[in-house]
Amino acid sequence: MLKRRKSASISEFTEKILAGDIPFLSRAITLIESTNTKHQAKATRILEACMPHANNSIRIGITGVPGVGKSTFIEAFGKHLTGAGRKVAVLAVDPSSSVNKGSILGDKTRMEQLVTDKNAYIRPSPSGESLGGVAQKTRESIILCEAAGFDTIIIETVGVGQSETAVHSMVDFFLLLKLAGAGDELQGIKRGIIEMADAIVINKADGDTIQSAKLAKVEFNRALHLYPPKDNGWTPKVLTASALKNIGIAETYEMITSYIEKSKKNDYFVTKRNVQNKYWLLETINHQLKTNFYTNPKVKKSLSMEIEKLENGETTPFNAAKRLLNTN
Amino acid sequence: MLKRRKSASISEFTEKILAGDIPFLSRAITLIESTNTKHQAKATRILEACMPHANNSIRIGITGVPGVGKSTFIEAFGKHLTGAGRKVAVLAVDPSSSVNKGSILGDKTRMEQLVTDKNAYIRPSPSGESLGGVAQKTRESIILCEAAGFDTIIIETVGVGQSETAVHSMVDFFLLLKLAGAGDELQGIKRGIIEMADAIVINKADGDTIQSAKLAKVEFNRALHLYPPKDNGWTPKVLTASALKNIGIAETYEMITSYIEKSKKNDYFVTKRNVQNKYWLLETINHQLKTNFYTNPKVKKSLSMEIEKLENGETTPFNAAKRLLNTN
Repeated sequence: MLKRRKSASISEFTEKILAGDIPFLSRAITLIESTNTKHQAKATRILEACMPHANNSIRIGITGVPGVGKSTFIEAFGKHLTGAGRKVAVLAVDPSSSVNKGSILGDKTRMEQLVTDKNAYIRPSPSGESLGGVAQKTRESIILCEAAGFDTIIIETVGVGQSETAVHSMVDFFLLLKLAGAGDELQGIKRGIIEMADAIVINKADGDTIQSAKLAKVEFNRALHLYPPKDNGWTPKVLTASALKNIGIAETYEMITSYIEKSKKNDYFVTKRNVQNKYWLLETINHQLKTNFYTNPKVKKSLSMEIEKLENGETTPFNAAKRLLNTN
Repeated sequence: MLKRRKSASISEFTEKILAGDIPFLSRAITLIESTNTKHQAKATRILEACMPHANNSIRIGITGVPGVGKSTFIEAFGKHLTGAGRKVAVLAVDPSSSVNKGSILGDKTRMEQLVTDKNAYIRPSPSGESLGGVAQKTRESIILCEAAGFDTIIIETVGVGQSETAVHSMVDFFLLLKLAGAGDELQGIKRGIIEMADAIVINKADGDTIQSAKLAKVEFNRALHLYPPKDNGWTPKVLTASALKNIGIAETYEMITSYIEKSKKNDYFVTKRNVQNKYWLLETINHQLKTNFYTNPKVKKSLSMEIEKLENGETTPFNAAKRLLNTN
């Protein structure tokens, strides 16, 4: 008979996390991910105890479609980071992840070396009903990882729905991984992704594909220059890399650290994090206001009626809205 | 002593508007723009009476920064439309407009010919406290203009805040007016504008500037082709024009009518308007939910406290949100 593990206190959790204890870190993140209200209450208190010890990190978002070599890249990049003396946590935002199915990201089996590195920590995406829910849990996990001493947090995501927007708003640097195509690099890129990127890395640039990677680099550079520089004066860069052959990895790291240095000098780093916190505060509130309204049974019933009236040209959106708001 | 005009009934308003009576159309739009609740109630009923007679038009949004020649372009374009037998209404969305200052758009003094054209109607932007408020009044004015027999509605806006987004979501075709620059056409363009455009017209392409206009056309075409075609398969076009010399105006009109034909054939036209109506319904509701929440005095007080805690790293955005939502 398995002896049931005694539930640790909040102070024990906090102590262990601050000491860098990985099992306790994992248990705390599991509490964050739990839908059980007692667990959530405990998680809230652990978070607030850890808050003063958080924030001391660089947060890097990495996105790219399946097949672009994200796991291989993160492995190579992660190894370079630990080799440079850093402690790396790899988290993920994957809205398709469910408790049963698991996440397609944070796949430990595909980061064989990194998973045994004692200065690295890999965690699959939380599962959840909505992107907002998943993003919240990941954001809170970042805090715990930072309190546990991880100074580099990588958040990975695939190009699903608004995942990139969510990850972009919780990181200091947003990296887009691409492949060299057949000259039509930018066709099919989701609107807004290029604008979010602080850098584009063209992966698998080795052997036969070196030439097309160079052409792709020109194409992406042109695309990036269609936009004004970012708020902090940074002009997004394009690099080529081969994660498999460990090419371009050190350059990527140098680019990011130079970016972080620059943005800390002009206070942009702190300002951006404050803006992100405020964004999440308002996002959470606005999301809940809408949920409260639209799940109201009276509203649900009237909403379909009003939409039908709209489609039949019987009323204006504004009059319909007025009536629905009065239903409440 | 001025004799006070007797207030007309709703049925009289409706009758006159449907008969194309311009003074009554103007009075009804003034009721829409009024902040007086009695006027608003009356406007609501006139709108609902006019709704069945609305929708029979093409709605064209035109945006461009000051100096690009918007008034001249709209005048030339409007004259071409009335010459082709159409009845044109020119409205505007200008959030900077106030009851005292007036609108910088819909400037009748700059459209001298069009203003005397009996098949044209020009109305300055409503004033209002917020873009949402202004946009709502313009949208409702569109309905009245259509009921009054105007089959082409032009909505103009400058590049301020989210005005383009608001106008884009109330029109069938969105036109971006640009000038030929010094080769750096796209620097400084607000994010998202190019993606919204169904066409870009490079104005003032005459005499010395014809050559740079051609180069700009190449540049803009390249930019537009970075994005996938629109939902209805339309690839945005770039034209050059000189509104002053009446060059390119007929071509612009042909392009738009061919677009409308195509989108009516595959039902996209109706689908898009339904989507826009639903968008405005939800926008209006969500805006009101937020207003109700954030103007609550208890919330106002707690919000600044929570934001301060955030900036001091004392709490997470999610915990702060939870407390604020419980304040309500």
